[in-house]
Amino acid sequence: MQSLAERFERAAAASPPLRFVDVALRGLGQVMFQDNPLTGLFFLLAIIWGAVATGQPFVAIGGVLALLVATATALALGVDRTAWRAGLYGFNGVLTGLALATFLAPGPMLIVFVILGAAVSVVVTLATQRWLAAYGIPGLTFPFVTTSWLFLLASHGFAGVAGSGLPAGAVTAPAIIVASDPLRVVDFVGGVALSISQVFLKDSLVAALLFLVGLAVSSIPAALLALAGALIAVIIAHLAGAESDLVTGGLLGFSPVLTAVALGCVFASPTPRSLAYAAFATVITVIAQVAMNAALAPVALPAMTMPFVLVTWLFLMARPAAAKS
Amino acid sequence: MQSLAERFERAAAASPPLRFVDVALRGLGQVMFQDNPLTGLFFLLAIIWGAVATGQPFVAIGGVLALLVATATALALGVDRTAWRAGLYGFNGVLTGLALATFLAPGPMLIVFVILGAAVSVVVTLATQRWLAAYGIPGLTFPFVTTSWLFLLASHGFAGVAGSGLPAGAVTAPAIIVASDPLRVVDFVGGVALSISQVFLKDSLVAALLFLVGLAVSSIPAALLALAGALIAVIIAHLAGAESDLVTGGLLGFSPVLTAVALGCVFASPTPRSLAYAAFATVITVIAQVAMNAALAPVALPAMTMPFVLVTWLFLMARPAAAKS
Amino acid sequence: MQSLAERFERAAAASPPLRFVDVALRGLGQVMFQDNPLTGLFFLLAIIWGAVATGQPFVAIGGVLALLVATATALALGVDRTAWRAGLYGFNGVLTGLALATFLAPGPMLIVFVILGAAVSVVVTLATQRWLAAYGIPGLTFPFVTTSWLFLLASHGFAGVAGSGLPAGAVTAPAIIVASDPLRVVDFVGGVALSISQVFLKDSLVAALLFLVGLAVSSIPAALLALAGALIAVIIAHLAGAESDLVTGGLLGFSPVLTAVALGCVFASPTPRSLAYAAFATVITVIAQVAMNAALAPVALPAMTMPFVLVTWLFLMARPAAAKS
Repeated sequence: MQSLAERFERAAAASPPLRFVDVALRGLGQVMFQDNPLTGLFFLLAIIWGAVATGQPFVAIGGVLALLVATATALALGVDRTAWRAGLYGFNGVLTGLALATFLAPGPMLIVFVILGAAVSVVVTLATQRWLAAYGIPGLTFPFVTTSWLFLLASHGFAGVAGSGLPAGAVTAPAIIVASDPLRVVDFVGGVALSISQVFLKDSLVAALLFLVGLAVSSIPAALLALAGALIAVIIAHLAGAESDLVTGGLLGFSPVLTAVALGCVFASPTPRSLAYAAFATVITVIAQVAMNAALAPVALPAMTMPFVLVTWLFLMARPAAAKS
Repeated sequence: MQSLAERFERAAAASPPLRFVDVALRGLGQVMFQDNPLTGLFFLLAIIWGAVATGQPFVAIGGVLALLVATATALALGVDRTAWRAGLYGFNGVLTGLALATFLAPGPMLIVFVILGAAVSVVVTLATQRWLAAYGIPGLTFPFVTTSWLFLLASHGFAGVAGSGLPAGAVTAPAIIVASDPLRVVDFVGGVALSISQVFLKDSLVAALLFLVGLAVSSIPAALLALAGALIAVIIAHLAGAESDLVTGGLLGFSPVLTAVALGCVFASPTPRSLAYAAFATVITVIAQVAMNAALAPVALPAMTMPFVLVTWLFLMARPAAAKS
Repeated sequence: MQSLAERFERAAAASPPLRFVDVALRGLGQVMFQDNPLTGLFFLLAIIWGAVATGQPFVAIGGVLALLVATATALALGVDRTAWRAGLYGFNGVLTGLALATFLAPGPMLIVFVILGAAVSVVVTLATQRWLAAYGIPGLTFPFVTTSWLFLLASHGFAGVAGSGLPAGAVTAPAIIVASDPLRVVDFVGGVALSISQVFLKDSLVAALLFLVGLAVSSIPAALLALAGALIAVIIAHLAGAESDLVTGGLLGFSPVLTAVALGCVFASPTPRSLAYAAFATVITVIAQVAMNAALAPVALPAMTMPFVLVTWLFLMARPAAAKS
């Protein structure tokens, strides 16, 4: 594998179009913090499978289109080349494309929105980097979520596009919660797996497996932490009495998965102390996901990965003092 | 004209009351980024005309009262004199006065609100300057919008003042959009003109003309960019299927007008590259205006020029990297 | 009194458990900016009295539990010892515990929430300190309010805990305001007193008195300013026509009380000029409380002391220029 990777890298160094493909694939890998084109390839297959299996091929098309537009926009805006090559200007783009194609009705206007959204995601990434530079913390998927919110909200005012997949708006209210089903093993396993695939807005077991394998070829710790994050999320959410469909559909687990990986092995070395800190943050991310779902109900928006972003920022910002002892 | 301006400036230098009038007029001009008392005079005429023509003279009175209070408050708080003389502590005040008098019912409590709001707008301006100093970006109309939101929201809890002009609160929902009317030439021209006058919350063709002339006497590029911003807004909003009344009333165009002027010739020299960047930002501002209208529906607030502020901040923050290539 | 305090301090220096109690009491005192264990003792008595008198002893238990957890968490995270000893990591914890136990239904899940919330409040405090360090302003009760919002919102999605004390969600709308009752002396005095006890979410006259005495044993100016803030709030809110129940229940006065103390004698020396500045900020805090109540209606959240935090930050950030003249 290593030598294949080396040959690919050599070929990419010699061919600008191949380099572009390489950077786009790395952009996919960066959704899970991996600067690795092979990981990106697995993620691409997972996205395509997840879209085709649910009869929504246009979702995969939207994601890939956005990935290419974002990668090209970053080049046109003259961003730092090292960061560009690592795929750091692509991951927010692909997620924006997937989100817009998931929540909005297909049509010409969706294509326009995906292209504009992907380009704006790069501008937001640049601005976020500059904003956060003083604190030494990364932008994470903040550009993806804010850009998606912008276009999803705008769909309510434009007849040319309909927010067919958006939640219905409602004043925040106590959830009507029926007696929580006992969590059967099959639902438990499903909830853990879908928590991983929902990072890419996919609810497919095969896609989940492809995501995990793609992650593992780049980093075994990252794959284990993703699993651990999903486990924590499903267990905590179930024990606290969250709605069963949300738990088993992975809809309360995708943010915790990202928090676990980010704080467990990306922005810290995995020590007992840092893993305990990451586990605490992961639990809080589950609560934050439920909280933001409630907070966004009146504006009919999905929270997406904003809980991961906010909780990870919080725990990174608090760390210098915590790291002293 | 030049010599008249020189004579006025010499007289103002010798007379504190005349200097105060000079600074107040410059404050008006700064709504459109012009440090020019003659521009301010045209804008004042436009505001008075727009208020009287629609039978709401108290709106003009509220604006002028707030302008004077804000200019005096800044003096009392001991702000930097150079910035004060350029009118930079007046423009958020006059806009706050116009907004409160437009959206709230006339009465003694409105006068109290206008005076307090104008004074607070100066405090917010100072705090915003300090907050943004590290990023080297300007506060724009952020103090105006946040101060106005504060008082407009408070009107819901005080019997002494009624938010008679505020939109009714509603959960965010897909807009009920009837088949978009074909855009007749007269409506098109009206939409472009009112996009300019709505910067001052006015829907008057005569006022629009006075604003344009006032802008042109200070800066031809600014006047052309204001027109270009209005054109882009009306065309994009119409093509995307926005509600016709909003398009032809200029209600989706006032923020794009400001973005176009700010990024086209105020905070950048107009080059092909910077104009393309400004045009992109202007398109995004149209989408942001529609998005914020939807996002603010549950709290019954108008978005005012916050979309201009946020998009312009975004594109200014992202620029250093973009300017590299 | 002085010598008793000295003996207590000597004993605390020699005994870690006593030091822990000392720090916890100072944490209570810091809710009103007092680094004083005797003040904390009075506040503790007021909290217990207020809880028991209204038949809600679990509210006091929640507050004390959170105070101990937050103080211990800060120790475990290795925070700066000088700040820890002054109680600066405890006051957001105790308030979070009081808020969760006030607004959520008692039960095992509430205990879990209180413990998690107290621990998170320390993380938020550390992150907020780092965020605000560049501006030289304090975090105030920002960690308390944001942490409480997180768990209160999450209660809507977990069957294990019910937000029984939360306001019902509603789209922001003009308040239905009946003719304002004339403010009888007894109601006026009650409104002033409860404005002080509501800083700790208590509506008890005896508790109010204990809070005032606790404040006075540490700082007479702070006690006078708390009274002045409460007076301003009740008078302004009544004159502007706020709902009588809110005014006489102290629900529009607790934030102004804190603003008056903070800007009047904690973060400034009391001079005529700074007192005028603090009085202006106090008036604006009353308006901000009414505004935030309206803004949070759709998400069914109480504003708690966020108006105090935002207005005090605003006036502290604006001060450097204001202090020049």
